[in-house]
Amino acid sequence: MRIAYDGTEYAGWQRQTNGMTIQQILEEVVMTLFHEQVHIVASGRTDAGVHARGQIAAMTMEHSIPMERLTPAMNSRLPEDIRVMECWLAADDFHPRYDAKRKTYRYSIYAGTVMPPEYRRTSILERRPMHWEAVERMLCLLQGEHDFAAFQTTGSSAKTTVRTLYRAELIQSREIPGMYYIEVTGNGFLYNMVRIIVGTALEVGCGKRSLVSVEEALQTGNRNRTGPTAPPQGLTLMQVIYDRY
Amino acid sequence: MRIAYDGTEYAGWQRQTNGMTIQQILEEVVMTLFHEQVHIVASGRTDAGVHARGQIAAMTMEHSIPMERLTPAMNSRLPEDIRVMECWLAADDFHPRYDAKRKTYRYSIYAGTVMPPEYRRTSILERRPMHWEAVERMLCLLQGEHDFAAFQTTGSSAKTTVRTLYRAELIQSREIPGMYYIEVTGNGFLYNMVRIIVGTALEVGCGKRSLVSVEEALQTGNRNRTGPTAPPQGLTLMQVIYDRY
Repeated sequence: MRIAYDGTEYAGWQRQTNGMTIQQILEEVVMTLFHEQVHIVASGRTDAGVHARGQIAAMTMEHSIPMERLTPAMNSRLPEDIRVMECWLAADDFHPRYDAKRKTYRYSIYAGTVMPPEYRRTSILERRPMHWEAVERMLCLLQGEHDFAAFQTTGSSAKTTVRTLYRAELIQSREIPGMYYIEVTGNGFLYNMVRIIVGTALEVGCGKRSLVSVEEALQTGNRNRTGPTAPPQGLTLMQVIYDRY
Repeated sequence: MRIAYDGTEYAGWQRQTNGMTIQQILEEVVMTLFHEQVHIVASGRTDAGVHARGQIAAMTMEHSIPMERLTPAMNSRLPEDIRVMECWLAADDFHPRYDAKRKTYRYSIYAGTVMPPEYRRTSILERRPMHWEAVERMLCLLQGEHDFAAFQTTGSSAKTTVRTLYRAELIQSREIPGMYYIEVTGNGFLYNMVRIIVGTALEVGCGKRSLVSVEEALQTGNRNRTGPTAPPQGLTLMQVIYDRY
C-alpha cells in the first residue's frame, strides 16, 4: 500500500503503548473490515508529528479481496488524516524496509515573521534572516557517500553510519512566497538524520555555523559539529523507491 | 489588521450563539491583553469552514500600543489556526467593508480518486473526469459586469445583484499534481456566489451542464440554471484591495 498521512495527531508510525500510531490504526481497520489480525510493515518508522505522502507498507492477508476494492474499503474506515492512496499485490518475499533502494524526504521551512495557519502543521517558521546560498552550499557538501555519524541522534545503534545521499537540495517554492524545501534522497537514513541535516543547514544559513564545521562533522563523526534536531512537523516522507515496483 | 485563519474549527467570522467564531476569539484576545471591549469589523463575513489569508479587519482602541508590538502581542494569545499577519494604523473613517474595492477568492480542487490528507482541510476532492477547458470557458463567460442573481443563495437580500468580475480563471498548480484553483476577483460578491460559481463550473466541467445554461443564468437570474453550492472548505479569502492602503 502507498499510504499518506498528516502525522500531527499521532505518536508516529510504530505501535507503542503511549499514544495512537498510524500502524495501529491501519491494523485495527483491517481487523474491523476482514476480522483478521495482521502485522503491517512499513518502509521505515516515522516519528511523532512527521508526515508521509508515500509511505510504503505491506501486509499478508488470508482474506482475498480484489485490489481495486481494498483502497476504498480501507479509506471508508480510516480517519481523514490517514489515506491509502493505492494498493497492489506484492511478491511473497517483498519487504518494504529491506527492499527499499532509495527514500526521499522533504523538509518545509517558511521564512517570515508570522506562521500562516495554513502551513503550521507541515512546516516550521524560520524568523532568522537566512543566507540561502550558504544553505545550498552546505547541502552540496553532503551529497555522495559519507559517514553520517555526526548526523544521528546519539544512542542509536545502526551497524554502519555510512550512507549515500544521491541528492540534497534547496528548493524555493514557486507558489508560496517564503516557503523553502530541503529535499534529500538517499539509500538510507540514520535516526533523525534529515532533521539534524536541516537543523545544521539553518545554523549555517543564519551564520551561526561555518561550512568548515560541517566538513569536520563528516570527517570526525562528532555530533558537536552539527546543529540541533529540527522539529518533526516540517518533515514529510515523500517517496520510497524499489527495484521491482 | 491583516488576518489569516484556518476556518476548519470555526463557525465562520461573525459572532453568533452556536459555535466559536474568529471575530469572537479576536475580541476576547483584545480584552485579555488590554482589558478593552472592542468591536472588530471585517471586510466581510466568511462562512463556517471557509479560510482566509488576507482578511482585513479594523478596531478602535483607547489603549495606545506601537503597531510593531500589537502583532506579536495578539499572536501570543491567539490559537495557532488564527494569526494576525500584520497591523497598521488606519484613518479614523476607514471601514474594512464599505471601503473595499476588490476582493480575491481562491477555491481549491484536488482532482483524483483519494484525497491526500495534507490538502483535506483546504480543498475538495473531485473524482469526476473533468474537461478543464470547459471550466475555463465557463469562467470566461462570467467576467465583466453581470447580474449574478442566479449565483446567490435564495433568500439573501442584497440591494442589487449586479457585480463586476475583473478576473475569473482556472489555475493549475505548478507544484501539486492534480490541484486546480479557481480564482475570482470582483468588486463585491453575493452570498455564496463563489461557491455557486465553483459548483456550476464543476458541473460544466464534467458535462452535466452546458455553457448555454450558464448564459441563461446570467440573463434570467434563474437559480435553476446554476449548479450546487460547493462545500466551504475549498474556499479561501485571499486578498482585499483598498484605494488607500
